[in-house]
Amino acid sequence: MDFHQVYDEYRTDLQEIDTLLKHSVVSENDLLASSSLQLLEAGGKRIRPLFALLCSELGDRVDRERVHTLAASVELVHMASLVHDDVIDDASVRRGHPTVRAQYGNRPAMYTGDFLFARAISLLSSLADTDLHVEMSNAIVRMTEGEIDQIRDFFDLDQSLKNYLRRIERKTALLISVSCSLGATVGGASTSVVSHVRRFGYFTGMAFQIIDDVLDFSGTESVVGKPVGNDLWQGNITYPVLYTAQRTDQGVALRSLISPTMTKEDVAAAVSLVRNSGGIDQAERLAERYLNKALTVLSELEPSDTREALEVVARFVNQRLY
Amino acid sequence: MDFHQVYDEYRTDLQEIDTLLKHSVVSENDLLASSSLQLLEAGGKRIRPLFALLCSELGDRVDRERVHTLAASVELVHMASLVHDDVIDDASVRRGHPTVRAQYGNRPAMYTGDFLFARAISLLSSLADTDLHVEMSNAIVRMTEGEIDQIRDFFDLDQSLKNYLRRIERKTALLISVSCSLGATVGGASTSVVSHVRRFGYFTGMAFQIIDDVLDFSGTESVVGKPVGNDLWQGNITYPVLYTAQRTDQGVALRSLISPTMTKEDVAAAVSLVRNSGGIDQAERLAERYLNKALTVLSELEPSDTREALEVVARFVNQRLY
Repeated sequence: MDFHQVYDEYRTDLQEIDTLLKHSVVSENDLLASSSLQLLEAGGKRIRPLFALLCSELGDRVDRERVHTLAASVELVHMASLVHDDVIDDASVRRGHPTVRAQYGNRPAMYTGDFLFARAISLLSSLADTDLHVEMSNAIVRMTEGEIDQIRDFFDLDQSLKNYLRRIERKTALLISVSCSLGATVGGASTSVVSHVRRFGYFTGMAFQIIDDVLDFSGTESVVGKPVGNDLWQGNITYPVLYTAQRTDQGVALRSLISPTMTKEDVAAAVSLVRNSGGIDQAERLAERYLNKALTVLSELEPSDTREALEVVARFVNQRLY
Repeated sequence: MDFHQVYDEYRTDLQEIDTLLKHSVVSENDLLASSSLQLLEAGGKRIRPLFALLCSELGDRVDRERVHTLAASVELVHMASLVHDDVIDDASVRRGHPTVRAQYGNRPAMYTGDFLFARAISLLSSLADTDLHVEMSNAIVRMTEGEIDQIRDFFDLDQSLKNYLRRIERKTALLISVSCSLGATVGGASTSVVSHVRRFGYFTGMAFQIIDDVLDFSGTESVVGKPVGNDLWQGNITYPVLYTAQRTDQGVALRSLISPTMTKEDVAAAVSLVRNSGGIDQAERLAERYLNKALTVLSELEPSDTREALEVVARFVNQRLY
């Protein structure tokens, strides 16, 4: 089984989730409707809905409509956080498309995010299960803490690895973890299974974000959909940078380049230094350790097609580099 | 019974709600914790918690802890919307205190709002009643629509009265309405009572916002906590302005003053025109009509101390002018 087979198998579900997403962003306000729709149509792989779908099958009461609702809700939370993220990052391009903030401005982008958050909670409430709200809202609280940690940590080359890990946990791992655990909950899985996929999603999400951060250095603009070194230019200090900054040989040079006033040339020089420092290798190894933890947790579940599919997806999202 | 007696009677409850609010904004992130706390300590009358408290007493199962949780949740939604509102309005002062955006910047203010929203939903989920989530999240969806309508309508002197009313409904009336209906729901009131206080809250909220909008023209900076004509200067076109713009005598002069590039002198001249047009009287009459509708709905409930207290509070919040 490979990723595309898994994707094909769930194509109809994913299309229904997309229809649900389109219905969810209908608004009397034209600006809101069009900015949300633009965001939806910019695509993305719908990884979180896919995890929710798969994990729901580990239970014994798969009501597809409920699972689709949950999956759409999780994706709306993700989209909301992307829009607000772009405001913070001054991002003008995401996935090769202009961002909401670039096209409509920061303030409409802020409210588009609020609208999507509210729609997500509203969709979730239609499932009439408070446990879902408890887990989702706690995750959102921590996600917003992560976002503001990011602002605090901009351009800080002396932050600890732990600091970086906590930030990506909140930025990415939590919502993937929640996609898995709530998917399993809606599917009626046992608490043990729910707890397993929650950890599986967490470790997968950690690996996923580390790999995503590596792409800022190893990728090309056409693959990543945004300029190389863009995260660094924004001040987002990721693992490959932290690793390089701590090397005696390249650290000093790197520190002299990185600042809020760095030029495009400084960024290019810093990217080179990071590429040559071994930081990318180190980051990939770290991601691999998280991926292995995810797969170990998964191996504790009963063997099944679903378990195999989860492994395939976890491996796929963490091998975008090779 | 007057407002201060009502307030005194609920002082202990309101203090407990404040304690709950303080606990809710605790965060590992110092910036988030201090910006949220600053917002809390800037005060406000806690009108929404007070409505929730009062309405809860119309039911037969008043569990004070649950009511306090609901009241704190509603107030957090209100605070979140204030922070985001200040980003949109470029506001640097609210209630005489510097705003979060003025002190910390737009981006931290955006995430402070997100954090408070998430905490509100998280608190609400502790009540384990999905009906609360359905009503609250639908209200928040419409509130965000209202906020973005506001951006669309900035400086638009040709908008209809209906447009203005729909905007203030979303900006203010909905959350007051929800404070009342969810308060009654948590208190175990009948569906008929819940529906009555929902409408009562709605009409009271409409009157409240119209009066608030009038204060931009009739108030003084020391009373209102922000400069006279500040809303107008931001482009927020309210009823007194719409009324004046439609008068044949002052309309032309007013239209020549109001634009995104208007100076402080233009604002002062526009405020004078509005004051002399009869627009303030008209707006107060409109507010009074809404207040009367609120009181009519209230009169359909069984007489009780609580009903009397609700009337006192509704009258008070709409008589800040006199």
